[in-house]
Amino acid sequence: MQKAILLSDSELTLRLSKVTAAMSVAGLESILLSDNASKYYMTGRVFAGYIYITADGKLICFVQRPVELEGPDVIYIRKPEDIPAHVAAPSSWGLELNTTSWVTVERLRALFPEASVGNASSVMMQARSVKTEAELELIRLSGRKQETVYRRIPRLYREGMTDIEFQVEIERASRLEGCLGQFRISGDTMELFMGNIIAGDNADAPSPYDFAMGGAGLDPSLPVGANGTIIKPGMAVMVDVNGNYTGYMTDMTRVFSLGRLTDEALKAHDCSIRIHRALAAAGAIGTPARELYEMAVGIAAEDGLEHYFMGHRQHAKFIGHGLGIEINELPVIAPRSHDTISAGQVIALEPKFVIPGTGAVGIENTYYITPEGRWECLTNAPEAIIPL
Amino acid sequence: MQKAILLSDSELTLRLSKVTAAMSVAGLESILLSDNASKYYMTGRVFAGYIYITADGKLICFVQRPVELEGPDVIYIRKPEDIPAHVAAPSSWGLELNTTSWVTVERLRALFPEASVGNASSVMMQARSVKTEAELELIRLSGRKQETVYRRIPRLYREGMTDIEFQVEIERASRLEGCLGQFRISGDTMELFMGNIIAGDNADAPSPYDFAMGGAGLDPSLPVGANGTIIKPGMAVMVDVNGNYTGYMTDMTRVFSLGRLTDEALKAHDCSIRIHRALAAAGAIGTPARELYEMAVGIAAEDGLEHYFMGHRQHAKFIGHGLGIEINELPVIAPRSHDTISAGQVIALEPKFVIPGTGAVGIENTYYITPEGRWECLTNAPEAIIPL
Repeated sequence: MQKAILLSDSELTLRLSKVTAAMSVAGLESILLSDNASKYYMTGRVFAGYIYITADGKLICFVQRPVELEGPDVIYIRKPEDIPAHVAAPSSWGLELNTTSWVTVERLRALFPEASVGNASSVMMQARSVKTEAELELIRLSGRKQETVYRRIPRLYREGMTDIEFQVEIERASRLEGCLGQFRISGDTMELFMGNIIAGDNADAPSPYDFAMGGAGLDPSLPVGANGTIIKPGMAVMVDVNGNYTGYMTDMTRVFSLGRLTDEALKAHDCSIRIHRALAAAGAIGTPARELYEMAVGIAAEDGLEHYFMGHRQHAKFIGHGLGIEINELPVIAPRSHDTISAGQVIALEPKFVIPGTGAVGIENTYYITPEGRWECLTNAPEAIIPL
Repeated sequence: MQKAILLSDSELTLRLSKVTAAMSVAGLESILLSDNASKYYMTGRVFAGYIYITADGKLICFVQRPVELEGPDVIYIRKPEDIPAHVAAPSSWGLELNTTSWVTVERLRALFPEASVGNASSVMMQARSVKTEAELELIRLSGRKQETVYRRIPRLYREGMTDIEFQVEIERASRLEGCLGQFRISGDTMELFMGNIIAGDNADAPSPYDFAMGGAGLDPSLPVGANGTIIKPGMAVMVDVNGNYTGYMTDMTRVFSLGRLTDEALKAHDCSIRIHRALAAAGAIGTPARELYEMAVGIAAEDGLEHYFMGHRQHAKFIGHGLGIEINELPVIAPRSHDTISAGQVIALEPKFVIPGTGAVGIENTYYITPEGRWECLTNAPEAIIPL
C-alpha cells in the first residue's frame, strides 16, 4: 500500500486554501478535477480517477488506478457514475472545461444534472499561478540541474554535426542528469519532443504551434524544431530544451555558435539581455503583464530590431509565460493579457530575435517573483553567446 | 509558399471517400476537424486551424498558422468565428467530441447554432482504422527502422547499468536512426516519454495509465516505466520503445536478460509467442476482436499462467490495439470490444506476463491484416529472450 497523498498535511492545507479561495470567487460549491496536472498538484502524484473538493476544504480522491493507494481521503471507484453515492449533490460545481474532452465533461455533468456548471480550469489556473515554497523548491532543483546540463553543452558538439545530432546528445545529457522528458502542455494543440534546437535559417521556418520560435522539424507530422541543418560557422544555434527534472519545469534558452556572428545578431542578442534586465526591474507586484510586453516591444524598436522580434516571417504574440507543472501557466506576458505580476509567480521570459542569414538569438530565463517583487533568476548559466 | 496538402490527389480522394462513407453512416452533412492527428491524416501535415469536410467530399483547410500555405482548398482565418462566412450552414454536422475540450466544442457549436451535432471522433476512428497503401508504406518504414534499433540494443548494455541508463542509450540510438520521439496518444489521460524499459520486479508496480505494463517510474509526477533498478542476472528487462519514425508508428516489445531466467519465465515467454501464432491464425476477416482476447486468456490459462497474464498485482484489460498516427486506434482487442478484424487494419498484439521475482516477459509485434486476412508481421526482430 502507498499513501494516495504524498504532500505533507500543511502543504495540502495550503494548496486547498488557495483552491477554495478561487472557488469562492467563482461561486462554486465544489469542483471535480480530471486533469493529470491538477491531480498532481493536489496530491503530489498522478492517478486515474477524479478529485472532488468542496468549498469548505474537504478533498476526496476517487481512484480507478493504480491499485493499493490508501488514506482517509481515498475511495476506489469503477466508473465516475459511482461518485454521487459518496457526496452530497452541490447546487453549483466546477469541471475542468478547458482541458477535459466534451464527451467526458458531459458524462460528468450528468452525475449532478441539477447543478449549474462553472469552469474549474480557471480556478486551478489561478490557484497554481502563485507557487508555494514546496513547489518553488522543486522548481529551483530543476533549474540547478538544467544549468548543469547547459554548462556541459559545448563539450557535446563535434565538427560536422547536424542540429538533430547535436540535439540527441543534449537530450542524452539531460536524461542522464535526471530529466523526466515529459513536457506537460495544457491543451491539446501544442506538441513538442524534449525541446527545440534551431540552427541558422531554420529559425525562420514558420511553425503551426504557439511556441516563441518555429523551425521546420524533421517531418511534416511534427513541424517544429531541428530539421537536419548542418551546423556551420556564422550560424546561431539556439538551444531551448526540456527542464522537467522534478515534475516542475524551468525553461531556459541559450545561443551557441561556431565563430563570431554578425554585428546585427550580436546586437539583437544584447538587446534580448537588456529586455530581461528592464522587465525584471519594471515588473513590480501589481504591474499589468501587457505593460511588460509593450516595454519589450519598445526596447526592440529602439534598437531598430522590431522586424526580427519574436520571429521574422511569422511572429509569436507573447514574450513570456508562467510555468510550473505545465509550460503554459499564468501569467501570460502578451499584448492582450489581463494578468498582473504577483508575488510567488514563476515566469519564463523569452525575448528572442530571428536574424535572416544567422538564425535565432536571445535568451530565456525563468524567474521567481519574491514577496518583495524582485525577479530572482532560477536559470543561471552564462548569457552571452557561447562558442562551440 | 508551401502546399497545404502534401498528399497526392489520389490519396486525398481515397481518404476523403473513407471519411465521407463513415459520415454517411453517422448521418452527418459535414464535419469540422480540430485534432492534430486528424489534420495530419487529411493533409499529411499538422497546422493550427480546422478542416471542414462535406458529405459530397469537399475539403477546406481553415488555417491560422503557419503563414504561407497555399492551395485551392486553403482559407486563412484569424478565429473559428470566421468560418461560417465561407460555407453553407449544415443541418447536422460532426465535431471531434472525444478529443476536443468542452470549451472549444461549445465555441465551435455556436458557429452553426441550428445544426444538430454528432461525433466526428467516431467517424475519424472508423476511417483511420483501415489503412491505405500509402499509410502502410510509412508504417512498414517505421517497422524496419525500429527493427534496426532493436537489433542494436544488446550492444548498448554495459555492466552495472540501471534500467534508465540503459533506456537513455536506447533512446539515443532510436533518435539517431530517425525516431521523431513524439508518441501520439488519443485522449488526455495517458502520458509516456519515449517508451518503457522495465527491469525485474518494477514490472509489478501498478501504474495509473492504461498501458499493458506498469512500472513505478522515476517520479510520482510520471508514474510509469523505469525506476532506477540496477540490471542484475536473473532479471527480465522488457523493452517497449517508441516506433514513430515517419508520423506513423509501429509497436514492438522484446525481452533481454543477463543469464538465464527461471523455467517459469521462459515458459511464459514461449506462451506469449504461442498466443501470437494462435491469434494470427485465428484472426480471419470478420472475427470479433473479443474472441481473440478470450482465446489469448484461454491459452494463458492452459499453461497455468492466468495470474501473471497482463500483470500480476494489477491487470491490463486488453491484449492488443490498432495503431498508426496514434498508439490507441481501432480495433481494441479486449473483452468488451465491439470491433471486428478487417483487411487493412494494423494491430499490435502484446500478450505479456509479469512473473514475480523475474519481471515482465512476452513480446509485442505489429501486424498488417492483408486483403486475404493474413497477419503480416511488420516488426521482425528475433523473438526469443535476448542475452545482454
